[in-house]
Amino acid sequence: MTLGKLIGASLGPGDPLLMTRKAWAALHSNAVWTYPIRKKGSESYALNIALAAGLTLPNDAQALIFPMTHDKEKLARYWLEAATVVLEIVRTGRDVVFLVEGDASTFSTFNHLARTVRALDDRVDIETIAGVPAYNAASAAFAQPLADVDDTVAIVPAAYGVDFVESLLDDFDTLVLMKVKPLLDDIIQLLEKRNLLQHSCFIEKAGSADERKITDIRVLRGQKVNYLSLILVRNPKRLRGEIQKGCRKKSNE
Amino acid sequence: MTLGKLIGASLGPGDPLLMTRKAWAALHSNAVWTYPIRKKGSESYALNIALAAGLTLPNDAQALIFPMTHDKEKLARYWLEAATVVLEIVRTGRDVVFLVEGDASTFSTFNHLARTVRALDDRVDIETIAGVPAYNAASAAFAQPLADVDDTVAIVPAAYGVDFVESLLDDFDTLVLMKVKPLLDDIIQLLEKRNLLQHSCFIEKAGSADERKITDIRVLRGQKVNYLSLILVRNPKRLRGEIQKGCRKKSNE
Repeated sequence: MTLGKLIGASLGPGDPLLMTRKAWAALHSNAVWTYPIRKKGSESYALNIALAAGLTLPNDAQALIFPMTHDKEKLARYWLEAATVVLEIVRTGRDVVFLVEGDASTFSTFNHLARTVRALDDRVDIETIAGVPAYNAASAAFAQPLADVDDTVAIVPAAYGVDFVESLLDDFDTLVLMKVKPLLDDIIQLLEKRNLLQHSCFIEKAGSADERKITDIRVLRGQKVNYLSLILVRNPKRLRGEIQKGCRKKSNE
Repeated sequence: MTLGKLIGASLGPGDPLLMTRKAWAALHSNAVWTYPIRKKGSESYALNIALAAGLTLPNDAQALIFPMTHDKEKLARYWLEAATVVLEIVRTGRDVVFLVEGDASTFSTFNHLARTVRALDDRVDIETIAGVPAYNAASAAFAQPLADVDDTVAIVPAAYGVDFVESLLDDFDTLVLMKVKPLLDDIIQLLEKRNLLQHSCFIEKAGSADERKITDIRVLRGQKVNYLSLILVRNPKRLRGEIQKGCRKKSNE
């Protein structure tokens, strides 16, 4: 009896056309669809991308619950439950495809699911299909570089606080501030103080039908924004360290 | 007379299946293909991805030269030449699609091309199709997270030197070291000193048919590697700053 494998299919940030051909093929394979929800009955952003692509939810698809919490015991319990569902299917010989928004390696539940499945049965093969992260789609939407040649980029959850974010302005040309929702006003204040408002932009649900792009982010003060929102900050006045100019020529190519 | 637009089509890191459906559609549209080469007669990594996907090079496709140099005058001259070619085509009413490896917003020549085209004629619309960056494909290939929940990620060209790279270990859970070629031995030495060798991996031409993955990177000492190579460093022993735990609950969702 050959075990099925677990496939993490990154569906990109929301625009169904930003799905890779490989993810598209995985959705059309014989694999059983599984998709994350926050709690029973809630919508799945990842599943909605597949549906927006015109695909039909298969009858045997299964929602897996990944609650929004930092409670490690609670998380472990739900990961175990989700992994058990996956394991039951792969043990019948069928592959399981887990639908992921954005990229499966980046701030995603897929790693937890895969790790827990392997902890239960290390014979299960894991395949990760990389995808387009939301901040790449955001840069494209604003027609600005995420990283120009020799640039440095920091991708950080805003939850580490504005002091930490400010400290990054010495070393980084681009900041990607994830999950800005609870700290939005403080971040706007920081960017104003550092004269970076005109180099900053906000995007919510990048690439989806509900995408919201804001270039003058001051209008967001006091507003409630979606959990799937981020701020891109370009930092053009940074004093750069010396770069090893000879790098590209040092070896004879 | 309607002007054509300039489309930056990200083709992903090398595996033609990691191309998005949107890039795939752009390659099948009526747009004239353009693709970057380093110098006359050299191969185009971006074009090779399209060819590996089974597509045929159209007769009217045009190579655009983007030399490997930090010489700003020389670069500006070549950007102007490339932009002029693009402009001549869009002025006939046809779209131009520029083929980009990885993601068009990330360490790519597309931004320079687009900016120069707009400087010559600001009526030309620019469309950027986001793609899968090489380091996301690398994380997928090694089945490891690029960023786990609450992780911080720094993406930096290795050329800033090992001292800078070492300084990032205080604040970042993942380092993506781009273009490691000229500094490879120094980086290996640093990772050994900081006990991070077992958490580091090397990948060359991620996702392409020539992909090379190395988990014990010490074997690379003294070796010559390709320009399209990077090192992923996971930094599990980092002492994290306080994260605002209430973040996810602060607003009532």
